[in-house]
Amino acid sequence: MLKTDGLIIGGSAVGLATAVSAKNRFPDKKIMVLRKEEKVMVPCGIPYIFGSLEGSDQNIMPTDAKFKSMDIDFKVAEVESIDSDNQKVTLKGGEELTYEKLVIATGSLPKRLSWLKGRDLDSVFTIPKRKDYLDDMHKQLADKRKVTIIGGGFIGVEVADELTKTNHEVTIVEKLPHILEAAFDEEFTGKAEEIMHEQGIKLKTGIGVTELTGNGKVDKVILEDGSEIETDAVILSMGYTPNSELASQWGIPVNSNGFIKVDEYMRTPVKNILAVGDCAEKHDFVTRKVTNMMLASTACAEGRIAGMNLFKLNAIKTFSGTISIYSTSINGSAFGTAGLTEAAAKAEGFEVVSGYFEGVDRHPGKLPGSHKQAVKLIVARESGVVIGGEAFGGPSVGELTNLLGFIIQSRTHVSTIQTAQIGTQPMLTASPAAYPLINAANQAAVKMRK
Amino acid sequence: MLKTDGLIIGGSAVGLATAVSAKNRFPDKKIMVLRKEEKVMVPCGIPYIFGSLEGSDQNIMPTDAKFKSMDIDFKVAEVESIDSDNQKVTLKGGEELTYEKLVIATGSLPKRLSWLKGRDLDSVFTIPKRKDYLDDMHKQLADKRKVTIIGGGFIGVEVADELTKTNHEVTIVEKLPHILEAAFDEEFTGKAEEIMHEQGIKLKTGIGVTELTGNGKVDKVILEDGSEIETDAVILSMGYTPNSELASQWGIPVNSNGFIKVDEYMRTPVKNILAVGDCAEKHDFVTRKVTNMMLASTACAEGRIAGMNLFKLNAIKTFSGTISIYSTSINGSAFGTAGLTEAAAKAEGFEVVSGYFEGVDRHPGKLPGSHKQAVKLIVARESGVVIGGEAFGGPSVGELTNLLGFIIQSRTHVSTIQTAQIGTQPMLTASPAAYPLINAANQAAVKMRK
Repeated sequence: MLKTDGLIIGGSAVGLATAVSAKNRFPDKKIMVLRKEEKVMVPCGIPYIFGSLEGSDQNIMPTDAKFKSMDIDFKVAEVESIDSDNQKVTLKGGEELTYEKLVIATGSLPKRLSWLKGRDLDSVFTIPKRKDYLDDMHKQLADKRKVTIIGGGFIGVEVADELTKTNHEVTIVEKLPHILEAAFDEEFTGKAEEIMHEQGIKLKTGIGVTELTGNGKVDKVILEDGSEIETDAVILSMGYTPNSELASQWGIPVNSNGFIKVDEYMRTPVKNILAVGDCAEKHDFVTRKVTNMMLASTACAEGRIAGMNLFKLNAIKTFSGTISIYSTSINGSAFGTAGLTEAAAKAEGFEVVSGYFEGVDRHPGKLPGSHKQAVKLIVARESGVVIGGEAFGGPSVGELTNLLGFIIQSRTHVSTIQTAQIGTQPMLTASPAAYPLINAANQAAVKMRK
Repeated sequence: MLKTDGLIIGGSAVGLATAVSAKNRFPDKKIMVLRKEEKVMVPCGIPYIFGSLEGSDQNIMPTDAKFKSMDIDFKVAEVESIDSDNQKVTLKGGEELTYEKLVIATGSLPKRLSWLKGRDLDSVFTIPKRKDYLDDMHKQLADKRKVTIIGGGFIGVEVADELTKTNHEVTIVEKLPHILEAAFDEEFTGKAEEIMHEQGIKLKTGIGVTELTGNGKVDKVILEDGSEIETDAVILSMGYTPNSELASQWGIPVNSNGFIKVDEYMRTPVKNILAVGDCAEKHDFVTRKVTNMMLASTACAEGRIAGMNLFKLNAIKTFSGTISIYSTSINGSAFGTAGLTEAAAKAEGFEVVSGYFEGVDRHPGKLPGSHKQAVKLIVARESGVVIGGEAFGGPSVGELTNLLGFIIQSRTHVSTIQTAQIGTQPMLTASPAAYPLINAANQAAVKMRK
């Protein structure tokens, strides 16, 4: 029987982050990561294997060298059962491993969508994180010109962008009134839709899909109003479900959406078992409600917290609750969001004001490579605390969004942004007098006084 | 006699920021900006008129439309005298204006360097913010192939980068051991020097200049070791001095370096007179010492604080003291810094640990346009508070540096960064498991425990 100290089930980004954090903090402990496949996909990189990358081989997580240099063990294996009373895991094939602490990092799977008629026709794909599936899908898509993507969230949008670059005719169907609507207010979804129109991507928004039809192979998508889209392939991008079956089966409690119950330090109710990432329950930072959010970056933050505290609680978690922070890129323009949108805040019952400012991400704006940049801030009116932020612009929007995220996590008052010192540089940022983040704060402050 | 409420002397970025903030906060007040020239340069954009821009006409501050739409007045005029007893300013030509509050935003001038022999030869330039001078200089440089820049701070480096793009042979002479040494530790100055070498820029570091020689027109730079550099032109980029002569002459106290004395709300010791920007005294955020730092972005933060509080203190300044935050771009690579370098912190007597992590700014790294990215954090060992950060990478470094700046201004503990949630995206940021900022924090935390 193989003895481990920290045993991590799942070898994607969050498993790696957990292992590295645990080993950094507890160098004498034996840390082992179990993973199902030899080669693990960079999860966020998957849309790019259909365009910007030369296939999935350029999207492999570079874990092995790092693991070896840090003295972290890994093993390609599937888990058969968990015996929490005896702190033991049995692998398929019968091998047993003991653990002092077990971390479940099994991630998520595309929703099955079994209610959708025609779901099992040929050329109907989902986007799982498995290399073999993705390689096959990539090959099959090569000679399919018309592709319909169902679901206009960020994965659907990124895949659409990439497939367009490789000469596909893409249609996105989204049930909500706008693409990316869960993450952005209309100032931003409007821009995203405009960019996609210009790229030639067809958008059917505000309407759902009732059925996929075809003779063996899909050839039509039927919408709620009875209209049809002729298509050579369909990609279902309608969300993911936590991969928690194993955990649930072996007695670890899950919530009604299938997420494994955890506390702030990622500990499940079962002694010595933790869960992190897409399979673990999250509470929203602002609303305090349970949220179904799944992001690799959030998962890794959870992995770090689990790893740092694996054998002894010592690193106080400084941000209680989960904030969605994410960015996406469409045909060279970038969109970022953190916290609540104005629409979501209002729907939740918050009294908010917002500030919006549009400028340019270089100064003077005549410099080559300059891109429009816009920032919106959503502020709780009475307390003045920033609860949401959105950004549009060029390649600097990813880090600008991380600044927004840090501002929200720090429960920053809008006046702190108004008086904040920033750094500006002609080739890298907006001008100091027209820096959109600060000007958006100024706009919000003006409205707070009204 | 013209009556104003808020009168601002100086029409550069900080004058604009002050006026806009004052008008936002106090819409009923009459705000007027006096400026010397009809067309005001974007100060940070000046290096780019020598290369990336088609001359200074593309580097004009776009103030007029904004001023009009906000009902801010401006006037091209020079001030002759200030009468603080009667709250009155007299312009050259005799016109008089009264004020309720006066803001001095007269900026800075290139150091005269009268100790330098040969300083007054032809083809020896400084870099003031005056369009007429810069246009003449630009024209004169066109047919000068060999240009020697004395001073390897960020303006010297940016001008060198731009002149190289327009086919000049550039040499930088810097008295300190490395270029950009005041702002970066060796991990970063080394990279900057390597990039400049590859561009063909010659660097003479660790040696000063004793004399410029030539017959009417400069043709040689003589260094401290007696060696000579043949040159067609010299650009003196050895710093700026506060433009406070007018203020000093009319009774407003200045410190021993010529900066106008101000309190935290930018008020001078003279009633109803404020000063902001390069001409105003600053205290370092960490060391609390008086600092000679001059940055447009800092100036604008001061302008906002002065404007928001001009007629009534109401917006509490949330960051006490000045932090230098700046970034620069050399041949497509970007460098950013905030707070103290490790060298500066140690020289000041701080016990610090540092964390350093080098990764890639896209993920997977095979994505087109990816650039190495590195982050260093400087942490006060015992308190765990981050007091400095440096970054290297692609175009996202400008905003990443603003995140570092916000972290430092918020007196953030290193564990807050370790547990922070971030957002990542393949085309826009490093991967969630190898995000350099967080990994640098982890490295620092490991060292703190030793």
